[in-house]
Amino acid sequence: MIDDYIVKMSDELWAKAIPHISVDSVVFGFFENQLKVLLVRMAKTKQWLLPGGYVFKNENTDAAAQRVLKERTGLDNIYLQEFGVFGNINRSEGYFDEYDDQLWHKQRFISIGYYALVDYSRVVLAVDSYSDTCQWRSIDEMPELAMDHQSIFDAALTVLRQQLSYKPIGMNLLPARFTISELQKLYETILGRTLNRGNFYRRIMRFDVLIKHEDQRKGGAHKSPNLYSFDPVKYHQSLQGIDW
Amino acid sequence: MIDDYIVKMSDELWAKAIPHISVDSVVFGFFENQLKVLLVRMAKTKQWLLPGGYVFKNENTDAAAQRVLKERTGLDNIYLQEFGVFGNINRSEGYFDEYDDQLWHKQRFISIGYYALVDYSRVVLAVDSYSDTCQWRSIDEMPELAMDHQSIFDAALTVLRQQLSYKPIGMNLLPARFTISELQKLYETILGRTLNRGNFYRRIMRFDVLIKHEDQRKGGAHKSPNLYSFDPVKYHQSLQGIDW
Repeated sequence: MIDDYIVKMSDELWAKAIPHISVDSVVFGFFENQLKVLLVRMAKTKQWLLPGGYVFKNENTDAAAQRVLKERTGLDNIYLQEFGVFGNINRSEGYFDEYDDQLWHKQRFISIGYYALVDYSRVVLAVDSYSDTCQWRSIDEMPELAMDHQSIFDAALTVLRQQLSYKPIGMNLLPARFTISELQKLYETILGRTLNRGNFYRRIMRFDVLIKHEDQRKGGAHKSPNLYSFDPVKYHQSLQGIDW
Repeated sequence: MIDDYIVKMSDELWAKAIPHISVDSVVFGFFENQLKVLLVRMAKTKQWLLPGGYVFKNENTDAAAQRVLKERTGLDNIYLQEFGVFGNINRSEGYFDEYDDQLWHKQRFISIGYYALVDYSRVVLAVDSYSDTCQWRSIDEMPELAMDHQSIFDAALTVLRQQLSYKPIGMNLLPARFTISELQKLYETILGRTLNRGNFYRRIMRFDVLIKHEDQRKGGAHKSPNLYSFDPVKYHQSLQGIDW
């Protein structure tokens, strides 16, 4: 049945999409102190992939990436950043070997990689007709990914880690108000290691992007920590880098 | 004659290249205290463009960008960085209107943008059969660029300026030994404005990527300034960003 669907879609795609180009997205969310990534499982092969799709003939590439993710997450206007092109000739070698050469999916595809930072709590996951599962996975408990999707994921995580080193991060990943230790936990999760608390505090304060609030997080065993939020103007200035 | 050539190439390109994908490169060089960019002028239309080309069916995308630039500059292993995809539907609208719809060049192309930092003195410029001129132009004296190539250039310059704010730059643009004021001039040229000398010195020293040499630049009217070079290990560490 899924075979029939793939063949049927092939004709439709030749008619409406641009051959040889795909978009694949690494969608990050943060939940219960874990960095999560959105993965889909193919109904036929049971292989895991990043969510992706094709570019329609009358569609800009960025719009295609937004459309594909809206279908998976229900979200509009996702913060999506193109971060790399994956254009090696053998990147999906063997994946559709058993099909006819005229199958749309069997072409050589050059994939445009996007990463997204989304508010985990707002996402409503949905499968498409190729997949039987769409789910969040912790980045340290990921299944094996098919084709070159592990490389695409690794490249996105590298970009995110580099971005941490010179730009603030968190505006799309944390709730509106958070404690410094929640922010530190986000950084630790992305970097994959623990950080010294004092150093972290000093470095974060140097970005000068936080607003401290009067109210405190209640209910902990220890002294109630202060709540902070990002100053949106300073945050966006800081994204531009230092001013020489 | 150029018309005949374009039509002849069209058949060849349908046979050997991947439709809908192009590569365009913003090649920066530094000479006589000016930031230069490599431009080509089309023989037929006399319009200026960034150097670009297509991706062969058996070729990785990065290799295609290297090949295209080697043809223009004679250089191998250029420092090339993919920095953006230009995939709007109307980006080359009107450019090949007078030709048959089957013409290769008239397709919708999604272009992969690369930027390169090259040693100006090593470049040997060459035209291809579409172009009658290939030359360096100062970035403040550029001709009008056709299609969306001004946007591609602007995006590359923005990336270069952002990179300046958190990474060292200069290793591929300056001679092996240089004075601090030559380095400052490079930064000023990229940023398009003058910088305070003391601030610049302090910020550059904070990157901790320079080696100071005993010998000095001779021949100036003033006190001979010290020569510096980049410490390659520290330079590359610094490119990775700060270590949390």
